[in-house]
Order: sequence, then structure tokens, then C-alpha cells
Amino acid sequence: MHPFTDEPAESVSALGEQKLIEAIRRWLGSVNPPSPRGIGDDCAVLPPARRAQLITVDPVVYPYHIDDSVPPRDAGAKLLKRNLSDIASMGGRPTFAVLSLVLDGRTRLAWLEAFYRGLAATARKYDVQVVGGDIAQSKGSAFTATLTLLGETAGPRALTRRGARLGDRIYVTGALGQSLVTGHHYKFTPRVAEGMWLANQPGVHAMTDISDGLAKDLRALTPDGTTPALDAAALPRRAGADVATAISEGEDYELVFALSAKVDAAAFARAWRRKFPRTRLSCIGRFVRAGTLPPGALDLAHYRGFEHLR
Amino acid sequence: MHPFTDEPAESVSALGEQKLIEAIRRWLGSVNPPSPRGIGDDCAVLPPARRAQLITVDPVVYPYHIDDSVPPRDAGAKLLKRNLSDIASMGGRPTFAVLSLVLDGRTRLAWLEAFYRGLAATARKYDVQVVGGDIAQSKGSAFTATLTLLGETAGPRALTRRGARLGDRIYVTGALGQSLVTGHHYKFTPRVAEGMWLANQPGVHAMTDISDGLAKDLRALTPDGTTPALDAAALPRRAGADVATAISEGEDYELVFALSAKVDAAAFARAWRRKFPRTRLSCIGRFVRAGTLPPGALDLAHYRGFEHLR
Repeated sequence: MHPFTDEPAESVSALGEQKLIEAIRRWLGSVNPPSPRGIGDDCAVLPPARRAQLITVDPVVYPYHIDDSVPPRDAGAKLLKRNLSDIASMGGRPTFAVLSLVLDGRTRLAWLEAFYRGLAATARKYDVQVVGGDIAQSKGSAFTATLTLLGETAGPRALTRRGARLGDRIYVTGALGQSLVTGHHYKFTPRVAEGMWLANQPGVHAMTDISDGLAKDLRALTPDGTTPALDAAALPRRAGADVATAISEGEDYELVFALSAKVDAAAFARAWRRKFPRTRLSCIGRFVRAGTLPPGALDLAHYRGFEHLR
Repeated sequence: MHPFTDEPAESVSALGEQKLIEAIRRWLGSVNPPSPRGIGDDCAVLPPARRAQLITVDPVVYPYHIDDSVPPRDAGAKLLKRNLSDIASMGGRPTFAVLSLVLDGRTRLAWLEAFYRGLAATARKYDVQVVGGDIAQSKGSAFTATLTLLGETAGPRALTRRGARLGDRIYVTGALGQSLVTGHHYKFTPRVAEGMWLANQPGVHAMTDISDGLAKDLRALTPDGTTPALDAAALPRRAGADVATAISEGEDYELVFALSAKVDAAAFARAWRRKFPRTRLSCIGRFVRAGTLPPGALDLAHYRGFEHLR
């Protein structure tokens, strides 16, 4: 569905700001708690946080992150799921979100309602409360929704991109590539439960999510003086994806992590299958000393991930 | 200065994403702590929070909140100050911010540097750390910067918009009106210290900031069954502002609050002057029973504030 209409009666400007905010509260339903915890004051008031907190922010911008091929419910869900994937990649539990909308007054009310209902359904599923936001007007078929998501560490630590060591095995969840063609970029399931479990495994040294392509995101995990030696045959590829697509395209929203070589890989795989029987896990290689790439290993230096602003 | 350039070498796209993020870290300087507290991972990791927390989000969108007449340093400062004003209006102390940028690749690098340096200077002044963000690309001379600001209650409570009572006196800080003409809309000083002090005065029942005009924002403080009886002569007006402008125009970023009738007004004014000798404070009226507006009182029903999406 196209987000904009030239029929004034069907657009958000027919409602005006006050009534639009009331409508948004209705659309959000139970994920918007009563003020001052939720929408309705200058700030939302949140409870004290006993654990270390996580914060991340990501937008969806029409027509870049979403276009007319993405149903508006899925567009709203994608906005939250992009941020959930960042919380997941640190092993955190999501808590509270605020949402800033910059939109053309010609935005179709029915489109926006579906967007919020999709966001609300995803928030309910992941136990996120949407506690506040802002609406500003723009022109020229603009729609930018920016969501800031808070979380907390679910265990004794937050997993970061740093900490991998020479010899660590490299794992990825799910499958990679063809995200845009297949609609995976908005249909994906953020790996929140998997991330929390991994942060509680002491053998997991470092983790990130794959948003700009494995070739780029794995670099952030690679310790100085090492290089990832990947087995092309072990790469979990989505149907139709060749190796180059699988590691360069981006928007996979899968986890990539480094596991200590001291951990029993077979026992780890068994524990994973018991806990997450429906989430594929693949060991795709390990970190070797720089300059010692074994023959036949995939050389990431030949691939690029998605580079913004190019 | 105009934010966009057709000279590729002077634009952000000449740098690309990675180098731009490095530049942003440099521009932010000391207000961006080392990762994982600051920029550099999927989320920023924040310390536990012992007190109730506050969260607010506001954007600046070119050419609506800022235009070519606003120096880019001041545009960056305005983005943070708009959010600081929301924290101030609850009596909070600001703590951490994240910033999402959606910009045309033609954005002038020099413009963006000044924007960040203005933001950083303001963050230093108010002891805010900028811990993360996101950059996404757009087209068509678009520049949307969305800042989410966290804070904590500075005393035993957060002041909200609810709590005013019949008979309460109504006060405003500073002066109102002519904000756009005079540049006050980006030159203003957010009332953070004043807000924290007011939240610690038990006689202050409710507070908000004036962003959409007193006529609209004071309605949010007005208890059911009452109406604000305002004394037009007591309204602190900026030079050149008539009464209608002063109460309808918006972007004043001053505080309006309700003070218990039991508080000694003269003693309160003395305490204020000792604490904030340079911030004007005006008692502009009080809440009276609905339908009992005294003769000569200003009737807010005749005025509107700024309504978005109209």
C-alpha cells in the first residue's frame, strides 16, 4: 500500500495532532501504559534500573528501508525488530521504546494505523512498552520513523563486539543472503531469546548482528593480528543466494559470534538444538593468525558489505 | 549556511559511512565516552539507574525547525536543548543521549561538523553524554536529526502536568512571544537548573514547558472544573510581542507551573531571586472555578496554540 493520499479526508492532517495522538494511544493499546509511565507528559517516567542498561536507535525511512511492497503492518514491525536485533546482539532483554515520527500531512490514516498495529503486536510479543514519542510534520512524501529502544542485561554481562581470540570458532544463526528479494528484511525474527542464552554461555567471547553483510560485520569481531578463515561450504545460504550475495548483501538480522576453542563444539551444538530446535546454527570457520589463511578458505578481503552514504 | 552542496568533494558522501562515524567521534570529543559506554557497538551500555528515569525524544527537521538562517552550530545546540527543555519540565537531571541522522549524501561536511560541535558544546555544558546513534541516507535535501534524551529525577519526585488544584497560582519563567523573529527558538537557554529546584519545592503542584504556546500548553496543566484566570498585564512579553503572539506562537521553551495557594508568594519570589537572579519569574494568574472568570481576565478560549499537522 502507498503511504500517501491526495484525498484530504483520508489523511492524517484531517485529524490534526491532538486526535492523532489519541488514535495512536488506541492503536498501541496495552503496550502503552498510562501516563506518566506512558504517552501524555513531557517525558515518560521509567522505574529505576538495577542492571546495566542498553540503548540503541534505528529508523525506517520511506522509500529506503520500506517501500510500497512492504505491508504497513510489517513496516511497523520492522522498525521495532531492527532495534530488537541490536539488543539481541548484546544478549539483552528489551524493555522500553520511544518513537519519533516525521511525516507528510498527506500520510494515509489507514496506512499509519496498520503501521502502529504492526508495531504494537511486535511490542506485545517481545514484552516492550512504547512509552512516548513525538510527531513532526514534513513534506514531499516523507515518512521517517525513528525508534529508540532500551534494554537491560539479562545475565551477568552484555556481550560486545570485542573479546574474540585467536582460534575461536565463528558461528552464525539462520541463513544469509537474498534478504531484499525474499522479503526477509521485514519478515525476519530477531534473535532475542538466542542472544540472551548466548550471553549466559561463558565460552561465547563476542557477538554482533549481521545488518550490513557478514563480510563487513564479521570484521568488527575480528581480533587484531587474526583473520577469519571461513569455509564457503559451511555458509548457511538462503535459497537462491550465492556466496557473494550471502556475505555482502546485508539486512540478514542474524547473530554472528565467536566461541572459545576450549568449548566442546559437539556438546555446544547439542545444547543449542535442545534450546532452539527451530533456529539453525552453523559453525562457518575460525580466527587464524593473519597471513596464514589455509588453502581453500574464503578470503573476506575480496568482499564488501553494505556501505552507507556511497 | 545552506546544509547541502553539489560539490561532491565537500559532501558527506565523499567520506562514506565509516570515516564519517570516525569524524563524528572526533567532533563529539569528550562527550562521547569510550565503547561500550559510547559509540562503537550495537548498543551503548549504560550503568544501572538508582532513581526513576526520564526519557524524551524530539527531532530537528530541515527546513522546519531549522533553516538557512540558523547557524549550524546553533542547529545542533537546538536539537539537544529542545530535549533538555522536556527533561527540565519534569524537574529532571539529563544524563545520556542517542542521535539518529537521516541525511542527503549531499550534506555539506563543514555544515555537519559545525552541527555536531554545537551539539557537543551544549552536551558538555549540561553534562550529557552522547553514547550512540545511527546514520541513514535519504535524498531530496533532507536532513532529519532525532535525539532521544535520558534523565533521572533529581529529587524525590518527577513533576508532571497533573496535580494542579483550584486556587493554585500560575507562574512562567522568562518572556513569551516573537521566538521565531528574534531567533529565540534556537538561542534559548533550557531551564534545567530551575526545573530541578522547582521539583524540590513541595508547593509546586504541576509543570510543563511552553513549546506550542501558553494557550495550548497551559491547558494541559488545568485541573478539571477550573479555568486559568490570567492577568494580561502580568504576561511577560518579549519586545515586540502583543498578547496574542505571546500566548499562541510557541517555541518559547519556558516553564509554566502551578504553585499552591498556601505558599507565601512573596517568600517564594525572594527565594527564586536568590537562587536564579537572572531568570525572570512572573505570576500570571490562577486557576478559578470554571464559569467564574473575573471581569478583565484573559480568556484563553479565544486563543489557540500551535497545532501540528494542520
